Amino acid sequence: MSAQLKLYENLADELGTLIASRVFAPGDRLPSIRHLSQQKRLSISTVMQALRLLEDRGLIDARPQAGFYVRHRARHPHPFAANEAQSLDAPTYVGINNLLMRVLRANKSPDVLDLGLSCPQAEMLPVRRLQQIMGAVARRRPDLLTQDGCFDTNEPNFVRQVIRRAVDWGRLDPQEIIVTNSCTEAMSLSLRAVARPGDTIAIESPTYFVLLQLIESLGMKALEIPTDPKTGPSIDALELAMREGLVQACLFVPNGNNPMGSVMPDENKKRLAGLLSRYDIPLIEDDVYGDLCFAAERPWPVKAYDSTGNVLLCSSFSKVASSSARVGYVSAGRYTQQLALLKNVSSGGTNHFFQAVLAEFIGSSAYDTQVRKMRRTLTQQIARMSDAVAEHFPSECSVSEPQGGFTLWVRLPERVDALALHQVALAQRIGFMPGPLFSASGRFANYMRINCGRTWDAKTELAVRQLGALVRAHAERI
Amino acid sequence: MSAQLKLYENLADELGTLIASRVFAPGDRLPSIRHLSQQKRLSISTVMQALRLLEDRGLIDARPQAGFYVRHRARHPHPFAANEAQSLDAPTYVGINNLLMRVLRANKSPDVLDLGLSCPQAEMLPVRRLQQIMGAVARRRPDLLTQDGCFDTNEPNFVRQVIRRAVDWGRLDPQEIIVTNSCTEAMSLSLRAVARPGDTIAIESPTYFVLLQLIESLGMKALEIPTDPKTGPSIDALELAMREGLVQACLFVPNGNNPMGSVMPDENKKRLAGLLSRYDIPLIEDDVYGDLCFAAERPWPVKAYDSTGNVLLCSSFSKVASSSARVGYVSAGRYTQQLALLKNVSSGGTNHFFQAVLAEFIGSSAYDTQVRKMRRTLTQQIARMSDAVAEHFPSECSVSEPQGGFTLWVRLPERVDALALHQVALAQRIGFMPGPLFSASGRFANYMRINCGRTWDAKTELAVRQLGALVRAHAERI
Repeated sequence: MSAQLKLYENLADELGTLIASRVFAPGDRLPSIRHLSQQKRLSISTVMQALRLLEDRGLIDARPQAGFYVRHRARHPHPFAANEAQSLDAPTYVGINNLLMRVLRANKSPDVLDLGLSCPQAEMLPVRRLQQIMGAVARRRPDLLTQDGCFDTNEPNFVRQVIRRAVDWGRLDPQEIIVTNSCTEAMSLSLRAVARPGDTIAIESPTYFVLLQLIESLGMKALEIPTDPKTGPSIDALELAMREGLVQACLFVPNGNNPMGSVMPDENKKRLAGLLSRYDIPLIEDDVYGDLCFAAERPWPVKAYDSTGNVLLCSSFSKVASSSARVGYVSAGRYTQQLALLKNVSSGGTNHFFQAVLAEFIGSSAYDTQVRKMRRTLTQQIARMSDAVAEHFPSECSVSEPQGGFTLWVRLPERVDALALHQVALAQRIGFMPGPLFSASGRFANYMRINCGRTWDAKTELAVRQLGALVRAHAERI
Repeated sequence: MSAQLKLYENLADELGTLIASRVFAPGDRLPSIRHLSQQKRLSISTVMQALRLLEDRGLIDARPQAGFYVRHRARHPHPFAANEAQSLDAPTYVGINNLLMRVLRANKSPDVLDLGLSCPQAEMLPVRRLQQIMGAVARRRPDLLTQDGCFDTNEPNFVRQVIRRAVDWGRLDPQEIIVTNSCTEAMSLSLRAVARPGDTIAIESPTYFVLLQLIESLGMKALEIPTDPKTGPSIDALELAMREGLVQACLFVPNGNNPMGSVMPDENKKRLAGLLSRYDIPLIEDDVYGDLCFAAERPWPVKAYDSTGNVLLCSSFSKVASSSARVGYVSAGRYTQQLALLKNVSSGGTNHFFQAVLAEFIGSSAYDTQVRKMRRTLTQQIARMSDAVAEHFPSECSVSEPQGGFTLWVRLPERVDALALHQVALAQRIGFMPGPLFSASGRFANYMRINCGRTWDAKTELAVRQLGALVRAHAERI
């Protein structure tokens, strides 16, 4: 019974992944039941169960006498005009901090349904399992409370498990790993280690606003590299910028870019690693969504192609285990010594107890189960959200097709000012992230980011419908 | 029985405190048993038990037919020459990082008995109590694992307990409190909020090396303010520097300065607060040893006298609860908004679980018990160490008389180079902190800091004897 359940769930997941990655695009007919049964060596009834599951998940429709078809979801996004031109604006100082803090605070107001986050609903996280581990570790390891808090940052088993998770694509050197209070701290320290105030940092466009904040707070400049919603930053544009000596460091989210969910193809990663080495430029690589990409194989980080220590790989388990454990790490390549020093001076050590707890979790098969479950859930919730936007927003709108992460990137009609829309939406108790927060130069005035980490429910559906009506009203009024 | 035990322990503690604070100085005769019995309204036998306890603790000696005398401990330190002159050197960039990391790593080598720390032995910390609380909180509060990790830093009960602990001296505004990953992070963010690269920061001389590291890593300059081993930084010298516009911020440890254990008198704190307000200069106040000062009343922080929001009070419970919980805070006065922003960008939120655990601990009477116990233990261990140094080191050496904290500051004969001595001591598997690490300008070449947080034992005694022999050899050889 349980084995059979696994069989049809596995098939459903496999087909779901093919649909998510558009191997089967909306409107396509799936292979017939007989064909699937022969090809997969599964019974007809198992295949039918799998297809029914996909129907339940809203991914396919049965057409009587015709077969199963991939559901029409949102339209393909038009390529983003700002990037299409492949032109490079001049590097610019960033000034989003004040606006960002206002938006975040407003989204957090009581009664606001906040679609502005990029994180899972609490129910998606393995809380019970972590509670059990915490209880056991608290009993077993009193020594974790009295470690040297200042200069002894790494809990050996945590480092071991991080390395074990990376063996698929390479070999991380334990001497290079510095455990930090979150991926954010890893990136903040990395940026301080590799660049100085006034330096120019190449970023994706759009990019995660905390990366812009970081650049702003350190008095550095940002150079927005044209970024494709599917394949990430343009390596041609980046090479041009490097050749002209415009760039001192890169700060990218190659796997599951936030907000678009793009994933750099392997050949782009290889080319990028080559450029970094040729021009001797460091890359700070945010890989926090790496395990939450939807392709069958977990994408490799750029670090996998780095032979010269130019890549500082930053990550944490905040998106798949616990958002508030605050344990991350950086594998810092040739910047390890500077990183270690900055870490000591900036916050001393990192909580040993939670390093041990997370080590136990990510070292167990429960972690794999959790990651699989989240990928599946996110694929479905993104599809749902995408459908809802397609249904309720004006037809000129486009949405991204995320290959990883939590968020959908929506382009609104050009006349719509996302910041003004945000104000009106707040009055209706709906929060989202307006597009200009994802740019150093005020791009994306008519874009918004929507979180798909919420479990889909009537409230969410209603909020999207209301948002759509507001967009429509705004587009018409002006 | 238990009540009686309390009575004589209380009397012993009271007398011990008077001895530690030199109300009864070495060689002084204590009041007679009869006198104490009448004055304290205690039975003769209770008084005798108390005196026997003090004898056991090595604080007094019984002289037959004559009474009880305070034991001769180390000599008073001569005032430190560099400070006596009350001269101000020019502000200087700091360059101790590399030396410091080498020394710390060497002290941590296997088999080295490390007297270089400033922290309690694990056995002094309330580990069992914390384990119990952790188990209970893990079961009761699954929500602590799924808090917003990026922008929601404060666990309300932690903030409440911090404020409750401060009511003796003032009223902290919950809106001003930012929870951080340790006191180190609180100070690092504070310094980044109030000053820029190139600015001059007034510090005590000697001062805690991590503060020097901080100044170094941020490209700022240090101005060493002459500092009295009992009363802390010279307010006259500081006023002079402020009047001449030399100082952009102050970074002090007013209660239990590390390494000397000085405590600023209240009137100095008042004057300091006045100066800060007159010249509009911020003070970053490290109060991490505040609860571990030995006077009967816990000393107030400078923040208690601050009416203009110029003081950023930083602390944590790492010295009295858990060194590796990594939860601290800053009450940031008029810099609160900058602090909040820097905190978000530097490391996102702070571990909610440990905020809740610590809140429960510091909100209970167990915390008061723990603090009393540690003060008592530290007083005794410092006395023991002081005695041992007096016995084994050359007679020209002087030691500080700490009023708080873990460490003893020892002046060696002028010919002794503490860095060279450190090398030789390491060869004998003994580590300590050489004096030059406590200065921005290479002062204190013939000083060392010794940790008294270790439970006194034969190994420690032997190490001090060996160190004394090395000092003697060095002093004579040159």
